[in-house]
Amino acid sequence: MKLTQIRNATLLLEYAGTTFLIDPMLAEKEAWEGFAGTARSHLRNPMVALPVQVETLLAADIVIVTHTHMDHWDDAAQKCIPSNKLIYTQHQADAELIRSQGFTNVRVLQDENVFTDGLTIYKIEGQHGSNDAYAVPPVAERLGDACGLVFTHHDEQTLYIAGDTVWVKPYLKALQRFAPDVVVLNIGDAHIDEFGPIIMGAQDTLRTLQVLPAATLVASHMEAINHCLLSRRELREFTQQQGIADRVAIPEDGESLTF
Amino acid sequence: MKLTQIRNATLLLEYAGTTFLIDPMLAEKEAWEGFAGTARSHLRNPMVALPVQVETLLAADIVIVTHTHMDHWDDAAQKCIPSNKLIYTQHQADAELIRSQGFTNVRVLQDENVFTDGLTIYKIEGQHGSNDAYAVPPVAERLGDACGLVFTHHDEQTLYIAGDTVWVKPYLKALQRFAPDVVVLNIGDAHIDEFGPIIMGAQDTLRTLQVLPAATLVASHMEAINHCLLSRRELREFTQQQGIADRVAIPEDGESLTF
Repeated sequence: MKLTQIRNATLLLEYAGTTFLIDPMLAEKEAWEGFAGTARSHLRNPMVALPVQVETLLAADIVIVTHTHMDHWDDAAQKCIPSNKLIYTQHQADAELIRSQGFTNVRVLQDENVFTDGLTIYKIEGQHGSNDAYAVPPVAERLGDACGLVFTHHDEQTLYIAGDTVWVKPYLKALQRFAPDVVVLNIGDAHIDEFGPIIMGAQDTLRTLQVLPAATLVASHMEAINHCLLSRRELREFTQQQGIADRVAIPEDGESLTF
Repeated sequence: MKLTQIRNATLLLEYAGTTFLIDPMLAEKEAWEGFAGTARSHLRNPMVALPVQVETLLAADIVIVTHTHMDHWDDAAQKCIPSNKLIYTQHQADAELIRSQGFTNVRVLQDENVFTDGLTIYKIEGQHGSNDAYAVPPVAERLGDACGLVFTHHDEQTLYIAGDTVWVKPYLKALQRFAPDVVVLNIGDAHIDEFGPIIMGAQDTLRTLQVLPAATLVASHMEAINHCLLSRRELREFTQQQGIADRVAIPEDGESLTF
């Protein structure tokens, strides 16, 4: 597989002969305001430019939107992506939203999605914030649902893109069930006011490697959105201090990794 | 429906013409030691006697074991319950364990279980401890899986037995999806060393009623096991202070409620 970190959670993935564009956020640098009610909301988003031409991304066969927060599916993506592109969503509600935006070929991921060539994509539950955040209905409503994705194929290593989630039991269960070789962590330590982290942070590399010592982790969702507080430099220092630097890839935007 | 609080999480439920025995812990008072590594482990379990004759419970049509921790499925239950009793478990691993204990009619609950008379039981994911607890593999292993149960029938109110879980997103989603009229909360605030609560506590009554203001909550899993720190008296005072005493039933062991 070839995995390219584009920007924030946007990934380009070539896997078993198919190219996936995941969580396209395609806006120009500083196109919109920081997310209100989150850390450093005075900063404009995206904080950095796309490292590639949009056309490169639009050549993907399939788009997967793990959830419809603006830093995963933005106005620019809605304008640039052809309306007949095949798009998968986590559930019916997101599919209906994206259809209402003019897209005509939108499908809903099931728990297990078997493609004819032997590729299987599993949808994994996430939790996009702390238990306390999900105990306050308006906060829970704003955080909503987000899914992870496990890719398996007999000719490929197993890949788990964990998506926007904190460490919850379903994440652990997915690690144990699939024993992925590669785990993409959205690890920018995004914070909302009062309720703290809504995605993973540096400690989750250690925790993941306790479960899967041989896995390679890939750090994503960093240095692009106002509320992501963990920098690549800080994460690099952390992994060096912890002796796990060889197990945690921290690609720059535009950098590709091959597994 | 008629719901009888037996002791700890053990419930006798008459629902749509069928009688369910849920989470049978049938040992005599103080039959075994307190759970090591949990609060007040010097106390012996169960801390109180069964309030009814075991025979009353064995007349149930179906047994459901939400998980196989000893305070939900104990040696005494394994001795007393006839080996051909129909027993439902949360997953294959629990079914295999119970079959290995000599039971011959053990089935696994699916996410949705439709019975011929219109009764449907939904299995709901729980998380039997904090996110931090599930980030430490041996702690996660000990806590394991536990499920909740939603009962629906056209002639009955909807009942959600939340089971051994803390407040996590799947609990909120179940409240929102099924809008249960009655919610049984395992609310004894059981604590394990270092990682805090592994089931619900007093605050979860308030949180649940914020989502479902018209629901009736039933407090269970109290005052029977060493590590359950919340007493009925304390919960009663809390609900009175919060003005929700009329929405939270706190049955004594042996007490029945009809809805």
